[in-house]
Amino acid sequence: MIGDKNKVLYDSIKRLLRRGATVHLKKIVNKTHAADLSVVFRSLPLSQQHRLFALIDDLEQKGLLFSELEDVDLLELIDAMPIDEIVTIMETMPADDVADLIGKLPEEKADAILEKMKKEGSEEVEDLLRYGDDTAGGIMVPDFIALSEDITAREAIESIQRDYVDVEMPFYLYVVDQYDKLVGVSSLRQLVVVAAETPLKAFMTTDVFAVQTDMDQEEVAKIVSSYDILAVPVVDENNRLVGIVTVDDVIDILRKEATEDILKMAGAGEEFVETQSVVRSTRIRLPWLFASCVGGILAFFIIGYFEESLKTLTYLAAFIPVIMGMGGNIGTQSSTIVVRGLATGRLNVRDLWTVVSKELSVGLILGIVYGIIIGIVAQASFGTGAFALSVGLGVLSSMSVAALVGSMVPMLFARLNIDPAVATGPFVTTSIDIISVYFYFMIATTLLGI
Amino acid sequence: MIGDKNKVLYDSIKRLLRRGATVHLKKIVNKTHAADLSVVFRSLPLSQQHRLFALIDDLEQKGLLFSELEDVDLLELIDAMPIDEIVTIMETMPADDVADLIGKLPEEKADAILEKMKKEGSEEVEDLLRYGDDTAGGIMVPDFIALSEDITAREAIESIQRDYVDVEMPFYLYVVDQYDKLVGVSSLRQLVVVAAETPLKAFMTTDVFAVQTDMDQEEVAKIVSSYDILAVPVVDENNRLVGIVTVDDVIDILRKEATEDILKMAGAGEEFVETQSVVRSTRIRLPWLFASCVGGILAFFIIGYFEESLKTLTYLAAFIPVIMGMGGNIGTQSSTIVVRGLATGRLNVRDLWTVVSKELSVGLILGIVYGIIIGIVAQASFGTGAFALSVGLGVLSSMSVAALVGSMVPMLFARLNIDPAVATGPFVTTSIDIISVYFYFMIATTLLGI
Repeated sequence: MIGDKNKVLYDSIKRLLRRGATVHLKKIVNKTHAADLSVVFRSLPLSQQHRLFALIDDLEQKGLLFSELEDVDLLELIDAMPIDEIVTIMETMPADDVADLIGKLPEEKADAILEKMKKEGSEEVEDLLRYGDDTAGGIMVPDFIALSEDITAREAIESIQRDYVDVEMPFYLYVVDQYDKLVGVSSLRQLVVVAAETPLKAFMTTDVFAVQTDMDQEEVAKIVSSYDILAVPVVDENNRLVGIVTVDDVIDILRKEATEDILKMAGAGEEFVETQSVVRSTRIRLPWLFASCVGGILAFFIIGYFEESLKTLTYLAAFIPVIMGMGGNIGTQSSTIVVRGLATGRLNVRDLWTVVSKELSVGLILGIVYGIIIGIVAQASFGTGAFALSVGLGVLSSMSVAALVGSMVPMLFARLNIDPAVATGPFVTTSIDIISVYFYFMIATTLLGI
Repeated sequence: MIGDKNKVLYDSIKRLLRRGATVHLKKIVNKTHAADLSVVFRSLPLSQQHRLFALIDDLEQKGLLFSELEDVDLLELIDAMPIDEIVTIMETMPADDVADLIGKLPEEKADAILEKMKKEGSEEVEDLLRYGDDTAGGIMVPDFIALSEDITAREAIESIQRDYVDVEMPFYLYVVDQYDKLVGVSSLRQLVVVAAETPLKAFMTTDVFAVQTDMDQEEVAKIVSSYDILAVPVVDENNRLVGIVTVDDVIDILRKEATEDILKMAGAGEEFVETQSVVRSTRIRLPWLFASCVGGILAFFIIGYFEESLKTLTYLAAFIPVIMGMGGNIGTQSSTIVVRGLATGRLNVRDLWTVVSKELSVGLILGIVYGIIIGIVAQASFGTGAFALSVGLGVLSSMSVAALVGSMVPMLFARLNIDPAVATGPFVTTSIDIISVYFYFMIATTLLGI
């Protein structure tokens, strides 16, 4: 299952594979952007993936494809590949992608690869493996320009042309002191504007943002995106410059986190599963529905408890769906607003009571509005005021409790450092269901005296 | 309500405002990054915003703050500001931000500002205003380096140092022919590596992505993010280079779109409302709940229709919550996966049947699992096989219908070019509620003969 734009590519590759048109295929796989190629690979059976992969001549293209493929797909693809081939390809890849990949391999294979890489002098990767996957250290690349604060603009330009031709993003020139500590930043533009003999120290910007290696990647992404910078320098505990996190990795993080949050809120796992098998998809979604099942069974016992009242007034049952539905929907609104607000930094966990009381007000106002509407329907259907009042109050209590629970639970989870996205979805919905039904029956049996 | 990091800043500004510590405040507002300052501004009363704003000495800092403020907040802030002051500040801002802002002003004010800017020779902005807000033309900046294909590397370097010192992102050097048509791209790095007399034509990359001015901004964002580039050139209908869209704007688009999708799915509007007033928040959320209300009332009529059966077997009512809850939750899972899959390009509208049949399979499998579990509870509570079977089948039908509706509706909406995020939330949930309840009662009355 692939995006619109790549459907054409996929179809022609399929056709050419069927026809065995090797020459034509070769041209396509070597010239297509690896990002597009990865989408096609994802949709092909493994045997065809291997056939296509063998047709790629350019080692660097193979490396790009490795970087673009999803973890699951990549692990499958390289499973049967000889270690030597994997290492040769990895040597063309950015160190952070290599470290990421190695971290996901079975231990034995990972060790074999690291051993082989070390022999060939690629220690960078092993350095990166020391950091947690989701930290600044885990996503940085050791690929930056670091110049001494004492050299001149002219010397800096020479050094860049001589030592840093391979740096992928030569936009920021980091300036370090004699202990490799980050002291400033400059740019190619500044170098050409100042007089050639000016020392870097004299014109560098000393106001430079840096993050620590152990900062969470989401925090790093927030900094890069809110300050509109292209890369952020990463320093170790001694403020020594050890890498940079680039904006393209930040985009990937932001997209992935948004997808994760959305899926978690719906109780549909964390990773996008649609492209995976039915069995896998089922397994991921099954446990989440369990909360809903347990909640439903609890609601059954609550209603069972009111069996006698129900016998007296069967119509009580007819309003269960609307009371549950209104509560469920406003609860989802509240928790979604809170979860997204926390994720984007627009809400602060410390504002718990401000947020919750605002949501509760909204819940009360909307509860009154819809309580009246639905109460009128009840009145029109039966003509008894007490019954209409019970239904109306049932709606009001359901909606205000839902707004309260829906906003408070994710705030509390966030305070306890539990991911608030998990709190929404089945968990909140289910508790709201139970509370709504209970309140409704309590109100009705009290008011109607049954 | 503001992010954790900025809480400290907000608190100290509040304290200093109270104390009237102007000197100290001045230092803060001129030195703090505008992105952080905008967060504080958002949380202050208007009068204090004006006081703070007047303390900013640096025109450019004022411009940065304008760019960072949310539309609503900015419009409030400049409402009472003289046109002259606004124009002076706008002249320090990127043209795309200015165009954006002008597009949101009342017509009279917008015209006055444009008139004034034209007198001072800022036609760029008026050019940008011709394009739709959400298109490549609307978000591009006319701030790029365009070199003729016939000049040499040395001439290119000279031209950059002479003519393009002000270009904000000098990472891509676009190469144009004599008609200003985009023919290639190069980089500062390439310029310093090749021999000085090589013509650009000889070493530029001819394989350059470009987008048309009318391309939707979401599409542009997808291209920039999937190809890991820092800017994409924008061309008009004659392939003439007219601007670039930079990665920092792409990040903003991606974040905004993710937030929009999340809120729409929950039926909580499109823009983040928590920071706004209770009244406004209520008004935005009220209509969305109406779908749920109408659906609930319909469910009431359906159950009312089965009143006689309910009288015979009151316990039928006790399983309404679990049947609705299981259907609702799996339906939300399905529609969330489809909506996010479409948004990230992992699903294609043309794969409608593949997607829907996969979701239906998942729904059937999970329906059987939970049908059996809940059926066993029913059996244990009453001991009649037919009743247990009715409940089990009710769960199964509810869950499979929910997976079907939840995946099909957003796919169909996407095909009809209606935003699929709107399709989830109240709309899908409500239809699932009605269908589930109806099927459950039909199955039960048929099997039990009541």
